[in-house]
Formats: sequence, C-alpha cells, structure tokens
Amino acid sequence: RLPTSVEIVEVGPRDGLQDEHELVSTADKIAYVDAVLRAGVRRVEVASFVDPRRVPQMGDAEAVLAGLASRVASDHGVSLIGLVLNGRGMDRAIASGVGEINVAVGVTDTFSEQNAGMSSDAAAAMWAAVAARAHESGIRAGVTLSVAFGCPYEGRVDAERVVVLARQVADAGPFEISLADTIGAAVPTQTEDLVAAVRAATGIPVRCHLHNSRNTGLANAVGALAGGASALDASTGGIGGCPFAPGASGNIATEDLVHMLHGMGVATGIDVALLLEAVQHVEAITGHPSIGMLSRAGAFPKR
Amino acid sequence: RLPTSVEIVEVGPRDGLQDEHELVSTADKIAYVDAVLRAGVRRVEVASFVDPRRVPQMGDAEAVLAGLASRVASDHGVSLIGLVLNGRGMDRAIASGVGEINVAVGVTDTFSEQNAGMSSDAAAAMWAAVAARAHESGIRAGVTLSVAFGCPYEGRVDAERVVVLARQVADAGPFEISLADTIGAAVPTQTEDLVAAVRAATGIPVRCHLHNSRNTGLANAVGALAGGASALDASTGGIGGCPFAPGASGNIATEDLVHMLHGMGVATGIDVALLLEAVQHVEAITGHPSIGMLSRAGAFPKR
Repeated sequence: RLPTSVEIVEVGPRDGLQDEHELVSTADKIAYVDAVLRAGVRRVEVASFVDPRRVPQMGDAEAVLAGLASRVASDHGVSLIGLVLNGRGMDRAIASGVGEINVAVGVTDTFSEQNAGMSSDAAAAMWAAVAARAHESGIRAGVTLSVAFGCPYEGRVDAERVVVLARQVADAGPFEISLADTIGAAVPTQTEDLVAAVRAATGIPVRCHLHNSRNTGLANAVGALAGGASALDASTGGIGGCPFAPGASGNIATEDLVHMLHGMGVATGIDVALLLEAVQHVEAITGHPSIGMLSRAGAFPKR
Repeated sequence: RLPTSVEIVEVGPRDGLQDEHELVSTADKIAYVDAVLRAGVRRVEVASFVDPRRVPQMGDAEAVLAGLASRVASDHGVSLIGLVLNGRGMDRAIASGVGEINVAVGVTDTFSEQNAGMSSDAAAAMWAAVAARAHESGIRAGVTLSVAFGCPYEGRVDAERVVVLARQVADAGPFEISLADTIGAAVPTQTEDLVAAVRAATGIPVRCHLHNSRNTGLANAVGALAGGASALDASTGGIGGCPFAPGASGNIATEDLVHMLHGMGVATGIDVALLLEAVQHVEAITGHPSIGMLSRAGAFPKR
C-alpha cells in the first residue's frame, strides 16, 4: 500500500535556518547544503527571495545560490529551490539563476493576509503571474498551499476549499503542488485523504510539507505516502518552523523520516549514516542540539 | 479502516516513574493516578511487584494499591494493573488485592536473560504458572511480549518468532496479549502486520506498548490500530522508558496520542483538557517538563 520510493526535499537551509535568531553565514549555509547533498539528497530548498528587512536570515539568497552553482552544474539530478512570495521576489529569482522556485499561497484569507499581505485569491493570482514568468525563463515552478490542514487564525480548514484552490493554482501549470501543514495540526487520515483528493482533482504530483508541533509529523508522513504523495519535505536536525505562524514549531527531521521510510522498505536514495553526519554540521552551525531523535537513539539495527 | 474507538492504558505511574532518579512519594503517585482517572482513563498500570532493591522507585507497590482501593470499589470500569516478573512477585500481587496483572516475557533470549535472568522459554513457563495462580485468585491476567519489534542486543526480531511465542503464551489463557516496542525500533507497517498476525494466530485481543525513541511512536500507534489493536499504552507527559534496555527512551505521551486519535475520529473516552491538567501534575511530581508536545503547542483547534 506504500510506494517503493519517495523523493525527500530538504528544507532545513531555508525553512529551518529562517527560524534561527543568530545570523548564519553564507559559507555555513553552503556547508549545510553540501552535507545533505553528500548524504544523497537531490532537492534542497536553499533560499527565500523575501524582503531582507523582513527576514534578515535570508538576505544572502543570491550569494548562497552563486556559491552552490557548481553543484547543480556537475550533477543534473540536483535541484536547488528558491522560495518566491511575490513579483519582486521573482525578479530576484530570475536574476539569481535558480533552477526551481516554489511559491506559497495561503489557503485561508487571514493567514494569507498575515503572511503575505494579500487575500488567498490574490495570492493565487500572484502565483499565476509568477508561474508564467518562470515558464518563460525555463525555471521549474511549484506551488505550496500553506495551512492546508489547519490555520492558526481560522482553525479547521475545509478540505473542499483546498481542492478548489488546488484546481485554481493548477491552471498555471505547476510541476508539483505541495500541501503544507504549517502549524502541525494535521492527523494521518487527513493527510492521506487530502493528498489523494488533490491528486485526483488535478492530476499533478503532490508533495507534503509537515511539521511535528504535536508529535504527529511522521504519522502524517505515512498518511501522505498512503495518499500518493511523491515527495516529502523535511529538515535535517528538525530545525525550523514558521516565524509568522503562532504555535508553529519544527519541521519533521530528515534523519528520523528517512530512517523510518527505509525500515518500511520505502527507498529515498539517502545514506542515513551520512545524514547523521549532516546533523552534526547543523548542530555546529546553529549551536543547539538537533530536535530529531535518531541522532540520540542511533539507527536500528546497529550496523 | 481505523476502529471507531480504542482503549488507552496509562502506564506513566509504573513504566514512567520507574525511570525517575528521585524517589516519588506514594501520595504523589496516587495523585498522578487520580489526575488521569479524572481525565477519563480507565486502565492504569500503577505498580511493579519487582524486587525493591532492584527498582527502589517501585518499592511501595502495596501502599499505592491500598491507597487507590476506593477508586476501584467506586467505579467498576476502573482497572489498576500491577506488573509481575516472577512467582515471588505473584505472591505479592495476590496479597495486594490487585485486580489485574501483566507479566512480561522477553521475545529474545538475550533480552530475557538481561531483564529477567531467564531464557525466553523459561519466562513463558513462568508466565503460565503465574497465569494459573491468577485465574485461581480471580485476577485478570495479561501478558506482554517485550522487544517484539526489535532487541537492543539481538537487533531485528523475526515476526515468526513473535507469533510462535504468542501461540505459546496464549495457551495459559491471557485475556490480552501486549506487543512491546521496548526500544522504539518499530516502523508503522511492522506494527500493523505484527498486530494482525498475532490476532489471527491467537484470536486474543492485542494491545501495543510503543516507545518514541526514534520519533515513530504515533505513526506506529496508527499502524497498530490499522492492524486491529484494541488497546494502546501511553504515559502522560511521555515520561519513562526501560532502565535495563540500552537506548530506550520515553513512552508515547498520552496527551499527544489521544489528541491525534480524536482528530481522526477514534474515540477514547478521555478529555484532552483534563489530560493536559494531569500533565501539569506529572511535571510537578517529576520536576521536569513533559516530553509530550501537546502541552506546548496546545490542542487544535482551540476551544
């Protein structure tokens, strides 16, 4: 009932580091990305083209991408992703030479206004405009539906609302639609059902971005896989969250997720031992211990 | 595909407190049990009839049961459980007036020798002798198969070995067989498959005891439910582990588990808000914050 493999999208260098109070140097960000690439991760969210005054931690987006350009040039399986939240961000994305962008569209109006200063419909229109420019520029463009499983302001989110919005954003031709549990409110039956519903409604591959705020992260990942998700986001060391969403806390930890997936026979192409080395890099960069658990408990069985 | 309800067995007062370095007073243990009973929990593991020199924290087993006798007398839905590891423990269990016992049988010889000083087959024979005495005394008797999903000494555990042992212990007439992931090594497909296999092989209700050592606790709980488990163990505040199993860490937190179950429409009879009050009791008793996450993130949606 589960697929034989799934793609892991490492989001620590963006969604993780964005939450760190201390500024992380460009060199440390590049070292983080290199450590996860070494472990076998092929897609990494590395930058956000957001106003640096709003999110200073992401102010070196162009420098991070320039520093990593050789990794993409030498391995065509590698895709580095930049987050785009508006047209100005898209200007920067194009100039940066990034190969893949992701655009966030909040499912509820309140979240979208708080997070992006526009209604949900306006965000969907912004996405369509950005996607058209991405297609012109040969940039792969995906879209994320934020707070798709629950909103910190509006509470429960109707699955039908998500499906309608998914159909709407699908018109602009995303190669992938990501469903984000921004505040860790989802339950496994919900991730399974919503992933399946969005896939059925759009025919587009569905990725899931899950947070572990209420300890349900890995359970929700299994649900998403059962629903047909082809990619799962995670953050090495479990760092991150959403600084603008009250109550949001860490991403699911890449090392915990991958270890569980391999235990179930779901391949990821990632080496767990090398991923645990990447965790040590992340701990050194952030100065605090991983909230992932595998680095403490160790892989099972021992080698 | 999931059942509409499941029974929660609170194991914090035994499996949780057993791991605490500071001795907890009998009065505090009783207050802990009262707090979870108030929240709607009906079965609580409250004592271990183990040698007090080996586990001083459990030295007041008889006093805890005496102090709680009125709760059972006033509510026949309440069952308090004492853990029994050998014949001497059974002498004490009978004298204590406990209404339900649980006997642990290690699935691997190495674990059984380390934990109970006897082979796995010898432990199964001990269980059969204890069960016969329990039946004579009108005490409800269940059996737990420890390290059923993975062993800290022997590594992977063959499912067929567990099924054979389950058939063997079933001959002594347990009302329930519990499968314990003592070191948090299981994955969700494994809990689903093994619960289903043991149910099919024995026809006896299956309970699951899961640890969150590698962050898979709630995912494994969903797997166990899908496999047909009728009861799940958890510890309010997520306290506990197994002091004799290297690498073991906390039980799944009752509050996180119940919140997720309710979100999926699986009833437990437990009030989450009252359970969060019980978490505060546990934090006060143990002097450290809960490792459960719901008490920090809050219930979703907010009331």
